[in-house]
Amino acid sequence: MRDVAIIGVGLTKFGERWSSGLKELMGEAGLAALEDANVTSHEVEMLYGGTMASGRFVGQEHTAALMADQLGFKNIPAVRIENACASGGSALRQGYIAVSSGIHDIVVVGGVEKMTDVTAGEAATALGGAGDQEWELFQGITFPGLYALMAKRHMHEYGTTEEQMASVAVKNHENAYKNEFAQFRKRISVSEVMGSKMISDPIKLLDCSPISDGAAVVVLAPLETARKYNDTPIKIVASAQASDTLRLAERDSLTAIKATSIAAQSAYKQAKVAAKDIDVVEVHDCFTIAEIMAMEDLGFYKKGKAGKAIEDGETALNSKLSVNTSGGLKGCGHPVGATGVKQAAEIVWQLRGEAKDRQVKGAEIGMTHNVGGSGATAVVHIYKRAD
Amino acid sequence: MRDVAIIGVGLTKFGERWSSGLKELMGEAGLAALEDANVTSHEVEMLYGGTMASGRFVGQEHTAALMADQLGFKNIPAVRIENACASGGSALRQGYIAVSSGIHDIVVVGGVEKMTDVTAGEAATALGGAGDQEWELFQGITFPGLYALMAKRHMHEYGTTEEQMASVAVKNHENAYKNEFAQFRKRISVSEVMGSKMISDPIKLLDCSPISDGAAVVVLAPLETARKYNDTPIKIVASAQASDTLRLAERDSLTAIKATSIAAQSAYKQAKVAAKDIDVVEVHDCFTIAEIMAMEDLGFYKKGKAGKAIEDGETALNSKLSVNTSGGLKGCGHPVGATGVKQAAEIVWQLRGEAKDRQVKGAEIGMTHNVGGSGATAVVHIYKRAD
Repeated sequence: MRDVAIIGVGLTKFGERWSSGLKELMGEAGLAALEDANVTSHEVEMLYGGTMASGRFVGQEHTAALMADQLGFKNIPAVRIENACASGGSALRQGYIAVSSGIHDIVVVGGVEKMTDVTAGEAATALGGAGDQEWELFQGITFPGLYALMAKRHMHEYGTTEEQMASVAVKNHENAYKNEFAQFRKRISVSEVMGSKMISDPIKLLDCSPISDGAAVVVLAPLETARKYNDTPIKIVASAQASDTLRLAERDSLTAIKATSIAAQSAYKQAKVAAKDIDVVEVHDCFTIAEIMAMEDLGFYKKGKAGKAIEDGETALNSKLSVNTSGGLKGCGHPVGATGVKQAAEIVWQLRGEAKDRQVKGAEIGMTHNVGGSGATAVVHIYKRAD
Repeated sequence: MRDVAIIGVGLTKFGERWSSGLKELMGEAGLAALEDANVTSHEVEMLYGGTMASGRFVGQEHTAALMADQLGFKNIPAVRIENACASGGSALRQGYIAVSSGIHDIVVVGGVEKMTDVTAGEAATALGGAGDQEWELFQGITFPGLYALMAKRHMHEYGTTEEQMASVAVKNHENAYKNEFAQFRKRISVSEVMGSKMISDPIKLLDCSPISDGAAVVVLAPLETARKYNDTPIKIVASAQASDTLRLAERDSLTAIKATSIAAQSAYKQAKVAAKDIDVVEVHDCFTIAEIMAMEDLGFYKKGKAGKAIEDGETALNSKLSVNTSGGLKGCGHPVGATGVKQAAEIVWQLRGEAKDRQVKGAEIGMTHNVGGSGATAVVHIYKRAD
């Protein structure tokens, strides 16, 4: 198995992109990534594209072939990956395998979602497909409802508070304020989160990531030839994934996502690093409670301790551990298929030292954590600057 | 790269499976495949699941994790592949890469679709997502319409006749009659096809593959350890894939599917065999004209010559080349995500000598050919009995 590097990244601005369809978003992020990688379209050998529910959002399936076509990658194999909100991270892992195994050299991994052409209710129903349709959705529960169950239990077991959850949103909006690609470049306060509309007790509107349009693309190459394209290749030192039951009711615990801890342990082992070695991490904060659980399941805090630590500012930019410097799903936006790839792009910028106002000083090791559904899929990658 | 073998296969009966949902279909095919492979669920290291439009058909995304859960594969990585009607073949290729690269040993590849819970109009719209939604579907053309354009041009350029197309359906129903898993175990005549309802001139009802429910699963292992599980492992000697524009209007030709010929040439090279060496092939006959084009694009006949050869019986069971012994998409049924995996299962049975009444005598080399949309994806695999 060969070492694999990311040699180029590209994003669209995330948000309500009324004037851009799926193809325009793919094109915008893809061309930015190819330019960043100094790669021409005819050098690309394979494409993996993450999209969750494009069929329901815009009537379009077969989106990887569409992306290959849109970017001028004539006749290469193109494969769409759908693993709910972990589609992007799962696509990245497949790209990593394709390069690492020696099957392909230059592989493009894209993620895209166009969510704002449907009503909020239609979007909630489409996203509900990430859970068990028959046993959860059809019975009336939505994703805020599922995470509300987890939040309530976390509060009960560990004394986690609504204010602690709110502090996740405040931090992520603070970071998003500094990110030109973010959907919400707007600071918010704990009291604003606490006072926002109740969605599913205890989850309020400002505890939720938004409905977003956007795309993200990264370009992979074998590390041994990466410098032919780019002076600052970022090495992927671990790629791990795990699954669990779709149904929340069948899990061992409501307060931990087991797929995350399994994937994280595998990733730490592959990378030969520990949680304490990570300088910057993008975690899957689809709801604020999800970031609290992620900080625990990834091994940064003991169970029940993350809420207070976040409230105390330990995960703010350039504090103990910089978490979700992009603004996370909450602040940067959550075009579901794109999120996992956007996380990788943010870590690449951080490890290159190109993250501008949100740069983590001296960042050397980064991590991304992408979750599908209420935890039926988790994908963890670890990255280092190539020596 | 290691040699890869198929050590077990399982199918559900294809058809209108009113009493089975997505999960029941997955379970039925999956357990049959595990039993056939003599593999227990805890030995499985990874799952790839092909599903095309489960979001629109039954409201369920995230189907690979659901399949892993349903089959008791605790916490393994599970990845859904969506490449329209080539989802199954594309999933098989990803499974092949995962085993061949040495990343995983026992990998399960499944395909499933539950299509009969929606109206025919809703199904046609969902399937339309395989083409370009904005430039084709939204303008009013459906898949029978796209293939009708190809058929008309093929007739114009080569003199292909409607009777020749009808003979594809007659042959495939004849094979399906002998297949216990087939949706249509009913012989039909050329005059019945010619007299069936016009769908999109010149394509009539009996030129079209049906709307179907069904699942198919294969189990992969490294060839070097395959006999630990199964006495008759079938070696995958080639795995190739190509893409093209989603839009039919932008192709070089209306009478050939370029992605098929590119994938086929790559596959022949990998396998070190020629078209004349193939004993049995499952081709993608979503419409009868598609089988005629496939026989040409795969190199079995020169352009314009396949229609007459099929009409003359050259591709009937145990004639010159046995084509679509399962009944193909036309006779066996076409649960879109399952089709590519079902094709592999049929070839495995043929090469093992277990195809019962539809056994091709002395079959040693087999091929599968799976197409997405009107040809934006094509996947070709070649198989041999392991020595």
